[in-house]
Amino acid sequence: MIAPEMLASDVASRELGIELLDLSPGRARVSMRVTASMVNGHAITHGGFVFALADTAFALACNSYDEPAVAARADIRFLRPTHEGDVLIADAVERARFGRNGIYDVAVSRDGEVVAEFRGDSRTIAPRQ
Amino acid sequence: MIAPEMLASDVASRELGIELLDLSPGRARVSMRVTASMVNGHAITHGGFVFALADTAFALACNSYDEPAVAARADIRFLRPTHEGDVLIADAVERARFGRNGIYDVAVSRDGEVVAEFRGDSRTIAPRQ
Amino acid sequence: MIAPEMLASDVASRELGIELLDLSPGRARVSMRVTASMVNGHAITHGGFVFALADTAFALACNSYDEPAVAARADIRFLRPTHEGDVLIADAVERARFGRNGIYDVAVSRDGEVVAEFRGDSRTIAPRQ
Amino acid sequence: MIAPEMLASDVASRELGIELLDLSPGRARVSMRVTASMVNGHAITHGGFVFALADTAFALACNSYDEPAVAARADIRFLRPTHEGDVLIADAVERARFGRNGIYDVAVSRDGEVVAEFRGDSRTIAPRQ
Repeated sequence: MIAPEMLASDVASRELGIELLDLSPGRARVSMRVTASMVNGHAITHGGFVFALADTAFALACNSYDEPAVAARADIRFLRPTHEGDVLIADAVERARFGRNGIYDVAVSRDGEVVAEFRGDSRTIAPRQ
Repeated sequence: MIAPEMLASDVASRELGIELLDLSPGRARVSMRVTASMVNGHAITHGGFVFALADTAFALACNSYDEPAVAARADIRFLRPTHEGDVLIADAVERARFGRNGIYDVAVSRDGEVVAEFRGDSRTIAPRQ
Repeated sequence: MIAPEMLASDVASRELGIELLDLSPGRARVSMRVTASMVNGHAITHGGFVFALADTAFALACNSYDEPAVAARADIRFLRPTHEGDVLIADAVERARFGRNGIYDVAVSRDGEVVAEFRGDSRTIAPRQ
Repeated sequence: MIAPEMLASDVASRELGIELLDLSPGRARVSMRVTASMVNGHAITHGGFVFALADTAFALACNSYDEPAVAARADIRFLRPTHEGDVLIADAVERARFGRNGIYDVAVSRDGEVVAEFRGDSRTIAPRQ
């Protein structure tokens, strides 16, 4: 599994305060607290940070096997706004694998209520030497 | 126009070092330098930060009129990786407006080469009192 | 439930030979045989017909309650090609409901193997008088 | 260019009454009249047929070079309903090409008013022998 080593060297996720809660083949669960510096001009969490949390869960899930994989694309649907101090949980689950491709669904929730639904397409790459 | 006031109070975009280059009805252009804390475990820019830049351009463009608008959803396609030190430019252009909805296309580029294509759907909301 | 009445008056789905296999709140399952007139210039099923089957399952699932709903948008990922004579099954499952919005996932399969993954966003409308 | 030959053997598009109006590298323009058999249970055009028209424009545009290409995925946003008898025009324009990938935007309009916005991702394949 590549994910743990990858997360250890992932400066971005660490700086965002993202914590790994659970990891297994095809699945990952991470959390992040919304800080004052993640809030936008509408006084709600900037969509980029909700996306970043979901994207980290997705990256861990698609790297939970022996081949490195990267995000080819992703989409996110915002259901409810969140605010400074909220703790967000992102749950990534593999939906399909075919050839070098994978599809992963990530639900982002706060206190058990879904606030965003994310879907990402991954593609395996040749390992770095 | 709501966008300039919105950007002024957008802590998240400021902390990311996002700068406004141009703003007109239905359009916005912003830039961001990739810092050491935006790099992921593959040694490339974390997708969340590329998304955040595009999302800020989108938010400014869809708030370039007199009604406040929020992102309902967005998708992003990653064409090429970027690295620490790269300066990214995001250009948002309105593609359609209908009812309370808008569609915006955002191209993210580095040295004139597109690195990501983003499309966002906005929805106007009642102004905050 | 609005779906059965809606399907009865859905000329398009009938002409495509779409059959309802199962329907319950938030879920629908339909089938369609790929005919000679559904094949494109690559000798595989035209994406529009795979989409149409998934879209019908989505429409039935999001109309499985008491309020009429329409598709606001949808996306489809093609995993494997299909051919004339194949019987395709589309399974729609509700993923989220919030306000007037819904998110539905539809898996299209042939002989138990997924050939396309579809996600649709619905919106309830005022009933026609 | 592969597109004209491809269209000639595309039974599905012919059966739908799709006509080619214009074709050039990276671009295609097609039309279709909404028939009685394309109407759904809400008395509006079934989304599958609007998608099929856009998808045909997309397929022609991404096959307007010397390498065969197929749709990997697509998304569609429905802006306004259409009805039996309406003539729909789909305009496909290339947005990006990188490696074996392409991104195409398709606007579907009726009487000059956009009714749907489609974006498709293509991938070139090895030519059939």
